[in-house]
Amino acid sequence: MYQELKQACYEANMQLPKLGLVLFTFGNASVVDRERRVFAIKPSGVPYETLRPEDIVIVDFQNNIVEGTKRPSSDTKTHALLYSHWDSIGGIVHTHSTYATAWAQTQLDIPILGTTHADHLTVDVPCAPPMDDASIQGDYEHQTGWQIINEFQQRGLTPEEVEMVLVSNHAPFTWGKTVEKAVYNSAVLEEVARMAYLSCTLRPGLPRLKDALIRKHYERKHGANSYYGQS
Amino acid sequence: MYQELKQACYEANMQLPKLGLVLFTFGNASVVDRERRVFAIKPSGVPYETLRPEDIVIVDFQNNIVEGTKRPSSDTKTHALLYSHWDSIGGIVHTHSTYATAWAQTQLDIPILGTTHADHLTVDVPCAPPMDDASIQGDYEHQTGWQIINEFQQRGLTPEEVEMVLVSNHAPFTWGKTVEKAVYNSAVLEEVARMAYLSCTLRPGLPRLKDALIRKHYERKHGANSYYGQS
Amino acid sequence: MYQELKQACYEANMQLPKLGLVLFTFGNASVVDRERRVFAIKPSGVPYETLRPEDIVIVDFQNNIVEGTKRPSSDTKTHALLYSHWDSIGGIVHTHSTYATAWAQTQLDIPILGTTHADHLTVDVPCAPPMDDASIQGDYEHQTGWQIINEFQQRGLTPEEVEMVLVSNHAPFTWGKTVEKAVYNSAVLEEVARMAYLSCTLRPGLPRLKDALIRKHYERKHGANSYYGQS
Amino acid sequence: MYQELKQACYEANMQLPKLGLVLFTFGNASVVDRERRVFAIKPSGVPYETLRPEDIVIVDFQNNIVEGTKRPSSDTKTHALLYSHWDSIGGIVHTHSTYATAWAQTQLDIPILGTTHADHLTVDVPCAPPMDDASIQGDYEHQTGWQIINEFQQRGLTPEEVEMVLVSNHAPFTWGKTVEKAVYNSAVLEEVARMAYLSCTLRPGLPRLKDALIRKHYERKHGANSYYGQS
Repeated sequence: MYQELKQACYEANMQLPKLGLVLFTFGNASVVDRERRVFAIKPSGVPYETLRPEDIVIVDFQNNIVEGTKRPSSDTKTHALLYSHWDSIGGIVHTHSTYATAWAQTQLDIPILGTTHADHLTVDVPCAPPMDDASIQGDYEHQTGWQIINEFQQRGLTPEEVEMVLVSNHAPFTWGKTVEKAVYNSAVLEEVARMAYLSCTLRPGLPRLKDALIRKHYERKHGANSYYGQS
Repeated sequence: MYQELKQACYEANMQLPKLGLVLFTFGNASVVDRERRVFAIKPSGVPYETLRPEDIVIVDFQNNIVEGTKRPSSDTKTHALLYSHWDSIGGIVHTHSTYATAWAQTQLDIPILGTTHADHLTVDVPCAPPMDDASIQGDYEHQTGWQIINEFQQRGLTPEEVEMVLVSNHAPFTWGKTVEKAVYNSAVLEEVARMAYLSCTLRPGLPRLKDALIRKHYERKHGANSYYGQS
Repeated sequence: MYQELKQACYEANMQLPKLGLVLFTFGNASVVDRERRVFAIKPSGVPYETLRPEDIVIVDFQNNIVEGTKRPSSDTKTHALLYSHWDSIGGIVHTHSTYATAWAQTQLDIPILGTTHADHLTVDVPCAPPMDDASIQGDYEHQTGWQIINEFQQRGLTPEEVEMVLVSNHAPFTWGKTVEKAVYNSAVLEEVARMAYLSCTLRPGLPRLKDALIRKHYERKHGANSYYGQS
Repeated sequence: MYQELKQACYEANMQLPKLGLVLFTFGNASVVDRERRVFAIKPSGVPYETLRPEDIVIVDFQNNIVEGTKRPSSDTKTHALLYSHWDSIGGIVHTHSTYATAWAQTQLDIPILGTTHADHLTVDVPCAPPMDDASIQGDYEHQTGWQIINEFQQRGLTPEEVEMVLVSNHAPFTWGKTVEKAVYNSAVLEEVARMAYLSCTLRPGLPRLKDALIRKHYERKHGANSYYGQS
């Protein structure tokens, strides 16, 4: 019944080790089916080498397992909350990719320093602050979802404009209209994080990209008059 | 009609992922035909895995598409301006290679620190300063070409002596008599940028290469009495 | 007689170059047989490319060769001491993996900065201090074992809770209930060391992970109510 | 006549790209025949992908081409001088490997910080100071040989004890009793340089390895009572 959804989820997950974004089982991708209000997600702790499409778990937005014999990813509640609050997203990817995670460990936003970054988003990559202790001891992965949503709300960001976030002391989450875009964003974030690391250690205190360039590069790819790619 | 030109352009583009210089579609190579005053360039946003020789677009120096069904690279106007002003170059490569781009984000020239650098150029790798806001909001990619040409003029550099440049907050461009040389220069620039990053973070404020060594290593490869390679 | 033990040891050793943890012969893995009180270990200085299961050496806890025609790893006495003092461990891995070794060279613990680390241990990765000169000149590899055991005792750590250590100015050792877990820990340590290197050079003096998060992430994988992986 | 010597030289050169030590043609290996007082060396500027055993050039200690149709490496005179002054070495390797070259660009010795280094040499990796201008403008590659030999003499080092050197603002040279050992030393030097870079940027001003450990690790591999490897 969920054959196609599982297959799409499987293929997205298999891209993560291929792109060098995960070590062992440190990551997961999910795909949503908006009509049936369920999503497909990687099972917890299963190595990518042995993962099969039939291992993928189908979960609803209240975290109930709808289909599947394995336990879903331990990050499932974070995915569920993001899907239920953000109608526009079709897929979510979570990794512990090296440079993005190193930035998350510093609790700093990744400053926008160049056009590689500006081609994808017009603001710094936001780093959601550490959770308070009560939330951590409560429903932790559910609260991680709120941590992200609240941070976006406070900053006035939308998930359509900004398709990535760092969770302080943890790691990145990315998303997109499709899971393919979410996977793409994970790889872009890792590269943007790496370049920003290099620039910031080479010239501490360097200036952010000027506003005119931020707008220009974003419009090349995203504006009404975008002219990047094949239409 | 442009079969050979397209093939040469295709092969040059395919070298970029092989040399580890591009992620996804972040780069492009072009080849000029001086007699017909056109150049072949990668189509915009087409992944390297699916790129075919027949996808290559033929463009003239006024940015008109001469042949091809796809939209050319969004950087096409930069290529066109460089070809029309610099008669001696036969190919151009643009990448967002990691270390060269990190330097561009700092707005700093890459200082000449060793013979790996001096074997290829006798000055720091120039970093053209950020464009003024009016130019950014105008014909941006065309102005990027002027940004490079003006910087060379101000510094008294020629495109024969210096076959690479960083564009501030953006990324590198390289060129050469042939597109093969332009591709080679892209890989050399990335390695020179990496070594300089390491040296500068290990010993901030380190001295540049002494003049006698700069001249000597350059002459080994380029002077009238050059003795590097097979004659 | 020790066919299976040798095979298991061989396979664990062959994982080390595959995971990018060893250059040439700089590493070794061993597997213990608790009933017979012997362990299988890589022969000294044999390249991984030519290593065969029958080359593996069987050694007892007093460092006597029980079976095998080759000289065992020069680190054998360290392995023997750890096995004889720590009943719960089934395998040991020693590498000179790049980032973990770089930390060992600084004589600093690897601070716990994020959940990638906290998913595996709730304290900083301990760095055992340099040995005194008398011990170095004495039975050096045997003393290296004591250096590790004493450090754990002084810090009140157990080998079940903390399955990895850095030896100052030397390199890491990891272990686990099985040798597969010890190999896994070696790769995790290298990645944790790399992320911590990046975070610490990007933001010197950054804070450690808050206690509530440390406990939470550890319990996800290890506590009585753990919910990571398949049960 | 020099078939075997050429083949050995060819095989050593082909190891360099395989070990990740060279980009394009930035490196060369040579092998000496002490009886005939000639050495085999890579031709200049020939890519490794197309290099064939018959392309290798045979040169005597006075830099005369004895056999071969190609021009020998531009570094040939450095090799010749080292062979003629140091009787004990059988092969030489020159690369521009990234981390070793980055250290050479800082004009700093690589400090001995750990046992990975001490297993191979008991002193800092020496960095020969920049050449004076007269020597550069004279017989440059010949003078590079003197730069190395003089530095060893001033420091009281022998080429048997220390099989590697950095030439300031240039790059490393390594050697050994055999060319295989010289190749091995090039890879070891690159890894030692990388680890030292990481340690020094993580904890500037860190202490060198204590003397007792330096001696111990060196003796494990090299002393009269060495016990590393198979005897």
